Amino acid sequence: MQELRGKLVYDQIKNECLDFVGSHNGIMPALAIVRVGERAEDIAYENSVKKRFMDFGLEVKTYEFLGNVSNVDFQHAFRFINQDPEIHGILVMRPLPKQIDEEEMLGNMDPAKDLDGITRQNLAGVMMGDRDAFAPCTAQAVLEMLKGYQIEMQGKHTVIIGRSLVVGKPLAMLLLQENATVTVCHSKTENLKEICQSADILVVAVGRPQMVGSSYIREGATVIDVGINVDQDGHLVGDCNYDTISLKAGAVTPVPGGVGVVTTAVLAKHLVQAAGRQIKFTSEEETKDQYLEDAWKPGRP
Amino acid sequence: MQELRGKLVYDQIKNECLDFVGSHNGIMPALAIVRVGERAEDIAYENSVKKRFMDFGLEVKTYEFLGNVSNVDFQHAFRFINQDPEIHGILVMRPLPKQIDEEEMLGNMDPAKDLDGITRQNLAGVMMGDRDAFAPCTAQAVLEMLKGYQIEMQGKHTVIIGRSLVVGKPLAMLLLQENATVTVCHSKTENLKEICQSADILVVAVGRPQMVGSSYIREGATVIDVGINVDQDGHLVGDCNYDTISLKAGAVTPVPGGVGVVTTAVLAKHLVQAAGRQIKFTSEEETKDQYLEDAWKPGRP
Repeated sequence: MQELRGKLVYDQIKNECLDFVGSHNGIMPALAIVRVGERAEDIAYENSVKKRFMDFGLEVKTYEFLGNVSNVDFQHAFRFINQDPEIHGILVMRPLPKQIDEEEMLGNMDPAKDLDGITRQNLAGVMMGDRDAFAPCTAQAVLEMLKGYQIEMQGKHTVIIGRSLVVGKPLAMLLLQENATVTVCHSKTENLKEICQSADILVVAVGRPQMVGSSYIREGATVIDVGINVDQDGHLVGDCNYDTISLKAGAVTPVPGGVGVVTTAVLAKHLVQAAGRQIKFTSEEETKDQYLEDAWKPGRP
Repeated sequence: MQELRGKLVYDQIKNECLDFVGSHNGIMPALAIVRVGERAEDIAYENSVKKRFMDFGLEVKTYEFLGNVSNVDFQHAFRFINQDPEIHGILVMRPLPKQIDEEEMLGNMDPAKDLDGITRQNLAGVMMGDRDAFAPCTAQAVLEMLKGYQIEMQGKHTVIIGRSLVVGKPLAMLLLQENATVTVCHSKTENLKEICQSADILVVAVGRPQMVGSSYIREGATVIDVGINVDQDGHLVGDCNYDTISLKAGAVTPVPGGVGVVTTAVLAKHLVQAAGRQIKFTSEEETKDQYLEDAWKPGRP
């Protein structure tokens, strides 16, 4: 049994990011984290992003709003953040409180800065197989994990438990792009075990601690556990029972130490891609302006 | 074995459309068909839409471009069509010739008039479960067929062969919304027969005449054949072998007479929905203008 540790993929992506920063003198890609209120899990994720991005040579700016901020004030500030040329990407901690109009925010968000694939532009791009679209980071992390460990996807039956907009649905689209056969299961699925047993690759993203045990998988299958839950004793556990599954699976991700760290690395990778495009675009514009200026210099034929 | 004829669903939708037209005096929802060149299948589809829409009490305007129209001329005309308040919906015959920038056209298209769900706005809406989004008509037609014949979807295993943007991918999203378990197979799928045999509902959209025979299905399954092909003798045939499948399936759609006619009905239904929203929006705007005008009348306190 192979343990698929996120660290391997994390380090690969970290090196790509450091290479980018090293080759773009004086440009530091910057992420804006937008957080409303003080939910503990948001703050934990924010702190983890800050800490890791420092290692990646990337900047993080935090925009913190009171939990009762009005929609008008929030949208006003959000437009300001979105238009700031020194911010290359945005991560919004969701769900937002009820008074905030999320559709309005999405309409105000530049898809080129939407690193977590929450705008319609990016979601549709993922469906269309547009390689420039940003997929939600967690969905992308599952793919990076499979690619990083060179697990064959083409033609293989991948079963995803969970149909959310941040994992199940976009991941289904990404896996189809890799020529996998894809099944999406969920709480209403009949014969769940039987379907999971037919999987070459099983991805579990249900948010229920240790729901999936070895009876769900077939001998030698690859199991990717996306869940991060806290059990009664305060320990982090996944959606799978690692102990029983690891006796039967061919490969499995641990929790913690699996998909979680890769998600943050994907966010960093998306930021670097976004910054690269925005910088390229800006410098091309300047070159074009310079060219036009030169072209109109007096004395030219 | 039940034969799932499209006519039943077609007539239901036709009545809804006639009701709408009957209850909106003097308003005739109008579809613009945009066609570049003279591809025989485009003209056949166009003629069929024209004929059927007449029965539905709906108007069709055809905008025909020469096959070698320049991109600039095409986009100019397209913007004009899109902005015409007397056009409530647009159907573009695709694929467009190479010189036409399809992305540019999509950017010029009002998602509210995009009846065939080709804009990113609508594709993402389908993924997000937004009931106001227009799904591609063929994908929607499969769903209308299943609903029209009251075939249980919740919890059932639906297998789709084909991963296109007009059927497979959006249909997967629509079926998830109905609480079905969804598998998408395609040309690279290993063990295709075995996977299809596990389906309660099998949807075939591959575009290969009679590829799927009875060995692909299990006793009593529902089979929806989306294919429309012409065989060696010039007859219309589906992607399934109707004769062998009908001996084993619980229900199956014929070709012709199955999903095809429902697709045109869905286009009509989308047009009526689009017109309804545009008319409502316009009259609300007018009411608002009137209100503001009244509010500023001199002499008011």
